[in-house]
Amino acid sequence: MQQNQKKPRIVIVGAGFGGVKLAKLFAKENVDVLLVDRHNFQLFQPLLYQVSTAVLSTDEIAYPVRAFFRKSRNVEFFMAKAEGVDQARKVLLTNHGEIAYDYLILAAGATTNYFGMQEVEAHSYGMKTLQEALHIRNHVLHMFERANKETDPEVRRRMLTFVVVGGGPTGIEESGALTELFGIQQKEFHNLDFSEVSVKLIEATANVLPMVAPNLREHAVKVLRKKGVDVMLNTQVVGYDGNDLKLKDGTTIPTQTVIWAAGVKAVPFIKDCGGEVDRGGRIIVNEKLQVEGSDCVFAIGDCAHYQHGTERPLPTVAPVAMQQAQTAHDNIMKLIQGQQDLATFHYKDLGAMATIGRGEAVVDKTKINPQMTGFIAWCAWMFVHLLRLAGAHANFTVAIKWTWNLFSGTRLGRIITNIKD
Amino acid sequence: MQQNQKKPRIVIVGAGFGGVKLAKLFAKENVDVLLVDRHNFQLFQPLLYQVSTAVLSTDEIAYPVRAFFRKSRNVEFFMAKAEGVDQARKVLLTNHGEIAYDYLILAAGATTNYFGMQEVEAHSYGMKTLQEALHIRNHVLHMFERANKETDPEVRRRMLTFVVVGGGPTGIEESGALTELFGIQQKEFHNLDFSEVSVKLIEATANVLPMVAPNLREHAVKVLRKKGVDVMLNTQVVGYDGNDLKLKDGTTIPTQTVIWAAGVKAVPFIKDCGGEVDRGGRIIVNEKLQVEGSDCVFAIGDCAHYQHGTERPLPTVAPVAMQQAQTAHDNIMKLIQGQQDLATFHYKDLGAMATIGRGEAVVDKTKINPQMTGFIAWCAWMFVHLLRLAGAHANFTVAIKWTWNLFSGTRLGRIITNIKD
Repeated sequence: MQQNQKKPRIVIVGAGFGGVKLAKLFAKENVDVLLVDRHNFQLFQPLLYQVSTAVLSTDEIAYPVRAFFRKSRNVEFFMAKAEGVDQARKVLLTNHGEIAYDYLILAAGATTNYFGMQEVEAHSYGMKTLQEALHIRNHVLHMFERANKETDPEVRRRMLTFVVVGGGPTGIEESGALTELFGIQQKEFHNLDFSEVSVKLIEATANVLPMVAPNLREHAVKVLRKKGVDVMLNTQVVGYDGNDLKLKDGTTIPTQTVIWAAGVKAVPFIKDCGGEVDRGGRIIVNEKLQVEGSDCVFAIGDCAHYQHGTERPLPTVAPVAMQQAQTAHDNIMKLIQGQQDLATFHYKDLGAMATIGRGEAVVDKTKINPQMTGFIAWCAWMFVHLLRLAGAHANFTVAIKWTWNLFSGTRLGRIITNIKD
Repeated sequence: MQQNQKKPRIVIVGAGFGGVKLAKLFAKENVDVLLVDRHNFQLFQPLLYQVSTAVLSTDEIAYPVRAFFRKSRNVEFFMAKAEGVDQARKVLLTNHGEIAYDYLILAAGATTNYFGMQEVEAHSYGMKTLQEALHIRNHVLHMFERANKETDPEVRRRMLTFVVVGGGPTGIEESGALTELFGIQQKEFHNLDFSEVSVKLIEATANVLPMVAPNLREHAVKVLRKKGVDVMLNTQVVGYDGNDLKLKDGTTIPTQTVIWAAGVKAVPFIKDCGGEVDRGGRIIVNEKLQVEGSDCVFAIGDCAHYQHGTERPLPTVAPVAMQQAQTAHDNIMKLIQGQQDLATFHYKDLGAMATIGRGEAVVDKTKINPQMTGFIAWCAWMFVHLLRLAGAHANFTVAIKWTWNLFSGTRLGRIITNIKD
């Protein structure tokens, strides 16, 4: 027991892909681990769009953090909101007090970036949290119920116009899934004119899915258009007041629904951690993943800016965070053991994939096959995402739901849980 | 099409067991049906306690109303909150305008009855809506996370004391399910002293489960006590300020959690429907199920007071509502066809059942077997509830979850979705 008191204390901020992997790695070491997150679950963000479009339940993409560490008595979970780091005193500041650390890893992730447009932020829906996905689901379903009671065609059309901003995987997946959801709604709103319903995908640049090859980008746009999505490229949003989306060319789109998937930035407290941050609020790390100013503070994943031997900072995707978790763990163990030859992080690109709704996806640059599209790509997408979901139980029920959706053409999650009169 | 305009218009308020059954019956007739509910889903209330204790997801016990009537083009759903009836003008008043009817059936259900104790109502949790079940889940899980960070033992014990008021099926099921949830929590809160955790079930009378035989009531109490529930009979609540539950004998129980399952009353707008109501706000119907003052307004289920040839008004359970739906439909069709020999409603008691947690239940007065307890009763309970769940899909996933819970001893719904800092 005497030895226990001398164990190094590892504090990890964030229970996402990177943070949980780190805690699992450290669970096997002779250290004490404290994992801090403001949520008590790990969110499987790649499937958030399926919660927002009534395919999956919240419980299926959120796994209780403590359940990961049932048998790891040296891992403790602390539910709190991180607020900054005092490097001099070696403490993490939270809304539930200070936490002393020997080694600290910031793995706190990202939030939606509205690029300073406060009006847009106030009136549109983000796509980063479980609550936001539920808000979108409730709101979209509400729009149909309200339109069904609305006699003014102009007001009705505004309610039935759904705009997704951002041509990355989230925007592609969300807009594709919305058209499918509306196909199901059409079977049940006998008195609503579905020619008034529209889904628009707005992208500021000339391309969607920047991480895949140009031919796959074109394929994605083609498939989306075939599904009925109005894909608007080279289109920039400048404002939104909740009723009219203003574009840079001076035109407006009357709509009550703007889903913002156009950018991410690090969670705000990262700027208060003692290191230098980039324009996206991400803390700059050296090639050992250490934050400037301290040997014992590391940062990984979406909240870290890593740019060594790469043209641009690494993308904000799970594989980066998980690979960095391994390096951060290895380097901290070396420091604990008094070794100085820390490892340099090297990112291994595992390829990219995005689904465009039922039976369609694009997959690029993976080991197995350089490119895939269509049904086979969709199966690959499903397989990879099922495997990565935490909890064998969720794998089962999600697999059943997807199969059910495929064959039955219904979605049982179409319930409105926040009633506004 | 000319004939269509002369079709009688049937308006049904409430999409619960009774209302949906009515709409399904009228869907086959040459009438127009308008089903009104403030929610867009039918809630399977008997399993609400499983949402509140993190066993099931919201989507599994809530079925989108429109999905029932996909192929019934003469049934229209109208999402609105009913506010009263103007019998003279034959209109239903709602928060989205007036709805004219030829025949109206009130099937609007019940809400929690706090018996006028406003302080209790303000601080305790009801168990009638999906939102309330989620509030309980979030709150209970929060109490553990907060207690885990709390150093004052008195404050911690108050956080870890959970009181359920009411010894009916809901109270029995909720208190039993809470002890099981806490057994799982115990495996994951390595530093929390679980001798500080307690579940109390408070019942004002000398008995729990008034609808079953005395030997089964005793059995239920015995099983609950074995599970660790502190069953307090002959105990009356007189007040609750959010911190201390006050009992009639002058003692108090320090607790931050009171779940109120001690009584129901009709939803409030029922008193504004032109008929006479009883003390529980239920509208009095004649033996044909008609509301006083109008031949064409009927009431069924939990919002109706039916007392003909019975000692007490009928219980507020699904079988009553569903049997009354059949009679109300038959009588309205007779009126439409100009017949005067309306049928008298006769309730056929199908027996009662309640589960007391994993592997234990009591079943009484059913056709198959007059009494059952233990594992066989629990299987019967599961079977009946699975069958009655709407949606084959939900049957599947719920069956899997129950099986999973039985063997794995975990609950994946333990996620906190409302973050209070």
